[in-house]
Amino acid sequence: MSLISHFECSRCQTVVPPSSEAPTVCPKCAGTLYVRYDLSAAKGIEARDRIGTTVQDRQWSGMWRYRDVLPTVEPVTLGEGWTPMLPSRRYANVFLKEEGANPTGTFKARGLAMAISMLRSYGIKKVAVPSAGNAGGAVAAYAAAAGIEAHIFMPKDVPLANQVECVAYGAHMTLVDGLISDCARIVGERKASEGWFDLSTLKEPFRVEGKKTMGYELVEQLGWEYPDAVFYPTGGGVGLIGMWKAFEEMEELGWVTGKRPKMIAVQAAGCAPVAKAYDEGADVSVMFQNAATFASGLRVPKPYGDYIILDDVRKSGGTVVARTDEELLVSLRDWAEHEGILLSPEGAASTAAYDHLIGTGFLKPSDRVVLFNTGSGNKYTDVLAQALGLTNGD
Amino acid sequence: MSLISHFECSRCQTVVPPSSEAPTVCPKCAGTLYVRYDLSAAKGIEARDRIGTTVQDRQWSGMWRYRDVLPTVEPVTLGEGWTPMLPSRRYANVFLKEEGANPTGTFKARGLAMAISMLRSYGIKKVAVPSAGNAGGAVAAYAAAAGIEAHIFMPKDVPLANQVECVAYGAHMTLVDGLISDCARIVGERKASEGWFDLSTLKEPFRVEGKKTMGYELVEQLGWEYPDAVFYPTGGGVGLIGMWKAFEEMEELGWVTGKRPKMIAVQAAGCAPVAKAYDEGADVSVMFQNAATFASGLRVPKPYGDYIILDDVRKSGGTVVARTDEELLVSLRDWAEHEGILLSPEGAASTAAYDHLIGTGFLKPSDRVVLFNTGSGNKYTDVLAQALGLTNGD
Repeated sequence: MSLISHFECSRCQTVVPPSSEAPTVCPKCAGTLYVRYDLSAAKGIEARDRIGTTVQDRQWSGMWRYRDVLPTVEPVTLGEGWTPMLPSRRYANVFLKEEGANPTGTFKARGLAMAISMLRSYGIKKVAVPSAGNAGGAVAAYAAAAGIEAHIFMPKDVPLANQVECVAYGAHMTLVDGLISDCARIVGERKASEGWFDLSTLKEPFRVEGKKTMGYELVEQLGWEYPDAVFYPTGGGVGLIGMWKAFEEMEELGWVTGKRPKMIAVQAAGCAPVAKAYDEGADVSVMFQNAATFASGLRVPKPYGDYIILDDVRKSGGTVVARTDEELLVSLRDWAEHEGILLSPEGAASTAAYDHLIGTGFLKPSDRVVLFNTGSGNKYTDVLAQALGLTNGD
Repeated sequence: MSLISHFECSRCQTVVPPSSEAPTVCPKCAGTLYVRYDLSAAKGIEARDRIGTTVQDRQWSGMWRYRDVLPTVEPVTLGEGWTPMLPSRRYANVFLKEEGANPTGTFKARGLAMAISMLRSYGIKKVAVPSAGNAGGAVAAYAAAAGIEAHIFMPKDVPLANQVECVAYGAHMTLVDGLISDCARIVGERKASEGWFDLSTLKEPFRVEGKKTMGYELVEQLGWEYPDAVFYPTGGGVGLIGMWKAFEEMEELGWVTGKRPKMIAVQAAGCAPVAKAYDEGADVSVMFQNAATFASGLRVPKPYGDYIILDDVRKSGGTVVARTDEELLVSLRDWAEHEGILLSPEGAASTAAYDHLIGTGFLKPSDRVVLFNTGSGNKYTDVLAQALGLTNGD
C-alpha cells in the first residue's frame, strides 16, 4: 500500500504534512484536502497488471484490489467494491455500473469503508454525519463494524430503509425537520463539545479516496480504456470528484492513456444547484430554495465541493443535466421492464439524462458511456411503492 | 462449458435423455431431476486452476466463473454470484456468506439466472412461479431481462419490496390469501391452459444448477477446502441440495478432498416441517399447520424436495435446527450492532442456529463454519421497521 506523502488543498493548494491527528479541511481556506502519495512503487504497466492478483484473498478483494493507490491501513471491510459493469441489452455502447451490489446497497460503502478504516487507525472513537440517507446507513454499518460510536443526522422524511439501518446498527439517530444543510449545521454546532469527528461530505480527505476506486474500476472493467462519457448522479459529488482524481493518478502511473471521459453531473430538477451554477457560468453554487425530489440522495441544496465539481465537469468537456421526477420515474420503469434492473431514483437520473443528451445531440449513440446506478432500488421500497401506486397487501 | 449428458431422477434414478423440450420433473415418479454432465474436460487441479482466470470478462464473471460445470448457454446475467465471504469480527472460525450482494438482493438470483438462461434457449415465452417473495422478485427481473412473460403468485402479506419488484419489472402479480402452497396449487391448475412453464422450486432442474455455485464458491473462497459445517436457511432447500451436488461433482473432478461439511438446515419455529420430520426420523415432511414467521422466505409448509434435504443432511452428519422469531430478531440485532451486517430474517436464523449449536455442544468454537445470509436486510424494510418498533418519520 502507499505512504501518504502529504495533503493538498483542492482550492488554494496549501500543503499539509501528515501527522498523528486525523486531517479535516484546509487550515487556510477550509477547502477539501486531497491525499497525495508517493506512488513510485505503483508506476508502470507491470504494476497495473499486478492489480487484483490476490482477488481471492478476502481482505484485499473488492475495492481493496487497488490498495497500491490507497492509504496504508488495516481495512474495515464488509465486501465493498468491484461491482458489476452491466452492458445494456438495448444500447450497444451503454454500460450500467451497478453500485447497488455494495454493502448497505449503495456506493456510499466505498467512501465510508475507507474513511472509517482511517479514522480507526487515528484512534477516533466518535463520529457524526449529516446525511440525505444512504451515507447515514453506511456510516452506521462501518462504525458498528469498527466499534466506533456514530451520530447520524438525517431529514425526517428520508426513506424508511435508512432509518431501519441506523436503529439496527445501534447508531444514535436524529431525524431533523429540514434538509441535509440543516443537519450539517447541527453537527457543526455540537461537534466540539461532543468530541465528534465530523464525517461530512468533503470535510475530511478519505471518503474521496474510497470513492475514487469507482474510477479505477470502470477503466479496468472497460479493458483499461476510458469511455467517452460518465453519467454520475450528483448530490454531494464525492464520486465525480474522486473519479477525476483517479484519472489523474492513473495517467501519472501510466496505467491509462487517451482522452478522459466527459463527466456528466446529473441532478433532479427539484434540487439542481450545480446545474443552475453551470448554466450561469458560475464557479460555485447558491443554496437551492425549496429543494424537493423523490431522489432523496440528490436533495443536497448546496454541495460543499461545488467548486470542484464545476471545475472537473468543465475541464472534461462534460455538462450538468437536471431532469424532473416524472422523467426519472419513466426511466426507472423503462430500465426495470426492459433491462431487468431496478434502479434507485438517483440512478434513474443517469438513465434519463442519457436519453436527454442523445436527444439533444450532445452525445451520439456511438459514444461509449457508463451510467452510474448509485444504489439498489431495494433501499427505496416505501418511496417506489408510493410512486408505482402500490399499497401493502394487508 | 459442459454438455448435458442426461437428466437423472433424484428419487428413482430414472435416466431422461436431453431433448429439444425444456425438462420438468421425472416422468415416472415426479421427483426432481438432476443435470448430469460429461465433465471430463473439467477434471483435475489444472482445470480447477483455470477457474476465474477470465473474471474480468463481464459475461463470465460472478457465478459464471464456474461455466465449465454449468450447462452450455448464453447467460442472461445481471451480475449474480461471487459474493463476499466475510470473516466474523468476533468468532475466529465463523464466516458469513453474504448473498445480499446479488442482483435483486438475494441468493434467488443464482438459480433464476441459470433457469431463465436455459428456458430462453429452449424457446420458452411464458413462465409462472409460486413464491414466498424473493424468488418472485428474481423471476420478474430475469424474465424482464430475457424478454419472457412472467406470472408471479405470492402470499398477500409478502414484504412490500417483493411487490414493488414484480410491478416495476412488469410481471403479472397475483397476491393470494394463503401460503406458497396455495400459490403452487393455482399455478398447477392453470399452467396447461395458459401455456406457462412452471418454475416452481425443484420442478425443473436448472435452479439447482445455479444455486450449486454457492458450493463451488464457498470451497474456493476457503482455499479449496471444506469447512466443518454449513448453516443454510431452508425454505424450499434448493441451495442445500445444490451445494451437496456441487460437493459430489467437485470430488469427482478432483477439485477438493477431505470430509464434507455437516449440513445444518435452519428453519423458523413457526414453520419447521423439515425440523419436525428430522426429529421424528421421517424420510419426508408433513404439511406444517398454521405456518407463521417474519422470516417470510422460510414460510414453506411442505418443501417439494424434503426427501432430498433430509437425505443430504443425514448423510453429512448435520442436523436441522428451528429457532423462534424472537431468537432470530435478537441475533439479527446482535450481528447488526457488532458486525455491521444487516441480515435478512432468514440469515438471522443461521446466526441464531450457530449460537444454539455451540450452546448444545453439537459444534465446537474451533469448528470452521459458513453461515449463509440468503438476502439483504434492505429487502425487509417494512418487516424490520415493525420488528424494531420504528415508524416512518412523517
